[in-house]
Amino acid sequence: MNSSLGRSLKAGLLVPGLLTAGQTAGEAQDRVLPAIVLPAPQTDGGAPLMQALRRRHSTREFAHKPLQPQQLSNMLWAAFGINRPDTGGRTAPSAHNAQEISIYVVLPGASYRYDPAANKLVPVHTGDLRALTGTQPFPGEAPLNLVYVADLDKLGRDTDENRRFYAIADAGHISENVYLFCASEGLAVVVRGSIDRPALATALGLGPSQRVMLAQSVGYPK
Amino acid sequence: MNSSLGRSLKAGLLVPGLLTAGQTAGEAQDRVLPAIVLPAPQTDGGAPLMQALRRRHSTREFAHKPLQPQQLSNMLWAAFGINRPDTGGRTAPSAHNAQEISIYVVLPGASYRYDPAANKLVPVHTGDLRALTGTQPFPGEAPLNLVYVADLDKLGRDTDENRRFYAIADAGHISENVYLFCASEGLAVVVRGSIDRPALATALGLGPSQRVMLAQSVGYPK
Repeated sequence: MNSSLGRSLKAGLLVPGLLTAGQTAGEAQDRVLPAIVLPAPQTDGGAPLMQALRRRHSTREFAHKPLQPQQLSNMLWAAFGINRPDTGGRTAPSAHNAQEISIYVVLPGASYRYDPAANKLVPVHTGDLRALTGTQPFPGEAPLNLVYVADLDKLGRDTDENRRFYAIADAGHISENVYLFCASEGLAVVVRGSIDRPALATALGLGPSQRVMLAQSVGYPK
Repeated sequence: MNSSLGRSLKAGLLVPGLLTAGQTAGEAQDRVLPAIVLPAPQTDGGAPLMQALRRRHSTREFAHKPLQPQQLSNMLWAAFGINRPDTGGRTAPSAHNAQEISIYVVLPGASYRYDPAANKLVPVHTGDLRALTGTQPFPGEAPLNLVYVADLDKLGRDTDENRRFYAIADAGHISENVYLFCASEGLAVVVRGSIDRPALATALGLGPSQRVMLAQSVGYPK
């Protein structure tokens, strides 16, 4: 296990920059977080596809237990990882192969952007943004929320309506991969479009052409 | 094999109402097509999930060979079949469990709506609508095109923009299931949003609240 990941696992949470007693999120925000190099994804195995489809379902209740780093790496690869290193092809399709979706990983103590080529989590925010990934209470309690963010500029010259159309469909493809990964691994999961988008976009530091599409909570079942 | 399916397999195509020499599509249209009862889906087996994800890719070239009825049944179940008969739960999520997407199956000689509860294909059009499912030449040559149609009214009272948003995401979930099924089975597949929507909606006899979302070509690789 690399050392940044080792540090991040203090107190059993995959979170660097953990708050200590009496420290506020505002204080933690001032710290510079290291990037997390994930363990290489295990791209073999899993349940037979039809069995994963049979188990596919949504759950809104999660145990207070973080995912293991290896599981997180495997899940992010399944979601939208590089499955053809020679061409940069991904596990989910995108319109004109624009690959316009980035996955943000919102953990209790910090948020990251998944870099699939480097297999890294790049820090974007210290503090707990989980509640902003939904409008109901459960996302604030899930150990992990994935947020699918589209960069509309990557979809080229087209109407905003069309670019939005493709970006939503592409986020849908990715989130189904995560559903099936969770079905295979016995994890609880639910996707949603109901998100505090303006607040989350600001907190994640999104640029003017980036749009929050979908969010998905993942954890162990309660 | 049931008798309507047997009839539909004449000439090696899963298509009832096949055109005979000298007959035009317009003449065939006047015939009443029978519904096709599909063989029960096989909901076990398939490639290990991670292997299916590793093989996931898009292909726009298809052999002139139809799918077998059992494969079609398995694929439609994988796409958006009922995986929890006690609750009517499906293999892909939908907003508020609205289950607003219907799958239309566009074959060379006729088009059908998939009825997942009865495991039937209900005829909606006799004639070849494949070319209308895309704007490039390849969909007209693929042995099978799936069309994902949303009934926005099933999404309840919301803005049209929001209902459309959910419907696109939900079609994306379903089409990813089909991608992984094809990866597992060694079938060629590609999804698209570029569709002759007005012509296709008319030909399929869609109602005022129904919208064509995505189309997906499937076949054996060339």
